[in-house]
Amino acid sequence: MEQEELNTLIQFLKMPSVSATGEGIEETANYLKETVERVLGVKAYVEKTKGHPVVYSEINVKAKKTLLVYNHYDVQPVDPLNEWKYGPFSATVEDGKIYARGASDNKGTLMARLFAIKHLLDKNELGVNVKLLYEGEEEIGSINLEDYIERNANKLKADSVIMEGAGLDAKGRPQIVLGVKGLLYVELVLDYGMRDLHSSNAPIVRNPCIDLMKIIDSLVDSNGRVLIDGFYDDIRELSIEEKELIRKYDINVEELKANLGFKEIKYEEKEKIAEALLTYPTCNVDGFECGYTGKGSKTIVPHKAFAKLDFRLVPNQDPYKIFELLKKHLQKVGFKGEIITHGFEYPVRTSPNSAVVKAMIESAKKVYKVEPQVIPNSAGTQPMGLFVNKLGIKDAVSAIGVGGYHSNAHAPNENIKIEDYFKAISHTEEFLRIYSNIS
Amino acid sequence: MEQEELNTLIQFLKMPSVSATGEGIEETANYLKETVERVLGVKAYVEKTKGHPVVYSEINVKAKKTLLVYNHYDVQPVDPLNEWKYGPFSATVEDGKIYARGASDNKGTLMARLFAIKHLLDKNELGVNVKLLYEGEEEIGSINLEDYIERNANKLKADSVIMEGAGLDAKGRPQIVLGVKGLLYVELVLDYGMRDLHSSNAPIVRNPCIDLMKIIDSLVDSNGRVLIDGFYDDIRELSIEEKELIRKYDINVEELKANLGFKEIKYEEKEKIAEALLTYPTCNVDGFECGYTGKGSKTIVPHKAFAKLDFRLVPNQDPYKIFELLKKHLQKVGFKGEIITHGFEYPVRTSPNSAVVKAMIESAKKVYKVEPQVIPNSAGTQPMGLFVNKLGIKDAVSAIGVGGYHSNAHAPNENIKIEDYFKAISHTEEFLRIYSNIS
Repeated sequence: MEQEELNTLIQFLKMPSVSATGEGIEETANYLKETVERVLGVKAYVEKTKGHPVVYSEINVKAKKTLLVYNHYDVQPVDPLNEWKYGPFSATVEDGKIYARGASDNKGTLMARLFAIKHLLDKNELGVNVKLLYEGEEEIGSINLEDYIERNANKLKADSVIMEGAGLDAKGRPQIVLGVKGLLYVELVLDYGMRDLHSSNAPIVRNPCIDLMKIIDSLVDSNGRVLIDGFYDDIRELSIEEKELIRKYDINVEELKANLGFKEIKYEEKEKIAEALLTYPTCNVDGFECGYTGKGSKTIVPHKAFAKLDFRLVPNQDPYKIFELLKKHLQKVGFKGEIITHGFEYPVRTSPNSAVVKAMIESAKKVYKVEPQVIPNSAGTQPMGLFVNKLGIKDAVSAIGVGGYHSNAHAPNENIKIEDYFKAISHTEEFLRIYSNIS
Repeated sequence: MEQEELNTLIQFLKMPSVSATGEGIEETANYLKETVERVLGVKAYVEKTKGHPVVYSEINVKAKKTLLVYNHYDVQPVDPLNEWKYGPFSATVEDGKIYARGASDNKGTLMARLFAIKHLLDKNELGVNVKLLYEGEEEIGSINLEDYIERNANKLKADSVIMEGAGLDAKGRPQIVLGVKGLLYVELVLDYGMRDLHSSNAPIVRNPCIDLMKIIDSLVDSNGRVLIDGFYDDIRELSIEEKELIRKYDINVEELKANLGFKEIKYEEKEKIAEALLTYPTCNVDGFECGYTGKGSKTIVPHKAFAKLDFRLVPNQDPYKIFELLKKHLQKVGFKGEIITHGFEYPVRTSPNSAVVKAMIESAKKVYKVEPQVIPNSAGTQPMGLFVNKLGIKDAVSAIGVGGYHSNAHAPNENIKIEDYFKAISHTEEFLRIYSNIS
């Protein structure tokens, strides 16, 4: 049995499925459909989207509760190839680890969950209906997931959803992440003319670069406080439980600083860093360009400047409402350019008292024999908000990951420990068992 | 005689001398040396610099006054080649015009001045000592001219200098430009770390892009007023004559607007535009870059941002002093990055009552039979300040140009009218005659 579980994963890891280039996507989707059918004995479907297909299946045991399981079968590109010890799709086993692109993010997790369901089905002990949703575009921003979810809203109805993205921390504790920050991504473009001018004209024309800087300056102060009227109005206060989770969030400050590689970080105390990362909404400049950016000097008044900005949002900020406030602000400060949007994502923070979270914590303790790290929400963004807001699923959680601090997700030599794969199978099995009995 | 003057110019124009690539530079410098020797019967020298050579010669008639004549033998690159009607170094004659790269800027002017000196020498009527300085790097920013001038300061001593750069305006009036704006060019670099970070870290690190924008914001207000303490202190008031020249500066506002191609310009009235262009010092952003500037979105905190800024200066602002004031300001506002300098140039504004200017105006009237356009200084910058500040030459003027509004300097199909070439010879001859007799 264990050998089959390992072989099936290795076979899956040997299939390239790079969403950025499309390499192997179709073959992997078909392989995954066949694997679900073979392992679970149910029908699975390769379903079209405007981009790479979704693989979908349902296991209906006529239980009261339904769980949606979200994973993705696509992986990041493998560059730089020369830094890999083994071929990124060789799935080489060495010293109890499997090396392969996607092993940690997130083919190992996907396969572990599948075999856990099989275990329960085999024993006739699956007490919850399960819907499996495997996306093929997570690594390119889930660009067609919203459309797919909207078109399949009825089919996808569930009580809870478990997402991927969590893993094991540096101390080997499983992370259980109860939410995500939201996101509004905009690009501001100011274009004053047809071409750059000789800068001897600077006294008689406005410089779009200077004007756009002043616009951005009006959006955020030098401490990072957002200056848009109403920006903070809808933020809900943290519950006592959430505050307690943040207080207990175990960040190794020295390690964090070393990983970031920035000369300074704003805060020194662990609690303050956790509070900032998890609960401060931000206005961040991702990129800005205007005029001459080559070597040496060129004397011009640029005709065009643009800025890319992301706003990370926290419950209950609504990205669409924040966008309206932003537009109002831009009008107020006299912005006369173009606004392009690149994304709206809702923040989520599931209650620590919800059934899905309680079952996740209890099962983690049982399998890993440590206190799991429960985090009210990640500092980043995931499509979790889509499930909560578009499908009305109340509770969502990211947990059960096979990757750890050594896993090099998105980097060369991605790997997982084989024992972590089997633990994730056990964790999922325990979780499903407890979740089906909890209220 | 006229045929020789035309043939010599055409031969000169057929020689590529692209300073940016080095193409033909050496051959052209040698040809120019030989031409000076052949036409004037004096020794000429190809003198080394750290870059392309200078061609130098002296005609000493033991007069009281000495005039330095500055021109350059290098030209701009010819791209885009497919937009030329004739080969850029074919020097094709059509409808009374010569088409060639460098015809207007500034081989025509150089050669016209040479033959004017010959006319006077032949008639034994040259009443002023002349020093000829032909640079080979004007089109790449005169990068080694300062060093050359410093090393040859004694040799280059003169009472006045005539520069190139002026021409005929749209109404055919010769321009006489009495000065230039100065320049300080700096690059500011803020680098906070080793690599860009995922923007989920925005709450805990400073964004160099936002910080650099706020620095620039502190340098200049939205009306273009420079906010550096002491920036305006040394500016000398305009004389009554200079004010009068600015008032009379004949700008065609509609044509200017069409040429600029910007949606708006700051001023509508001719006098205000002239005042701004010629007398307002500026702080201009030539370029700015940070983070992700490709298509779509990427969520990062960039580790690095840089800005290129030019300050155009007016008499008697000193670029080195302004740089000290800038550094003081940057310290005051907490700038913790690197400052790279790309240039210091002094502003110049020669008195309209100086001998060289009076002679230039009088000779222009005589030859062109119109009121010349006398402009207190250009809106741009030229190495004129080097001659005034490094050599202590009191009076400098840019005048006697063969190019007009049709000439496409720096563009495809550069051309001059053959009659303007011969007029420039006459103008130079008259100028030298009057200048040698004026006090």
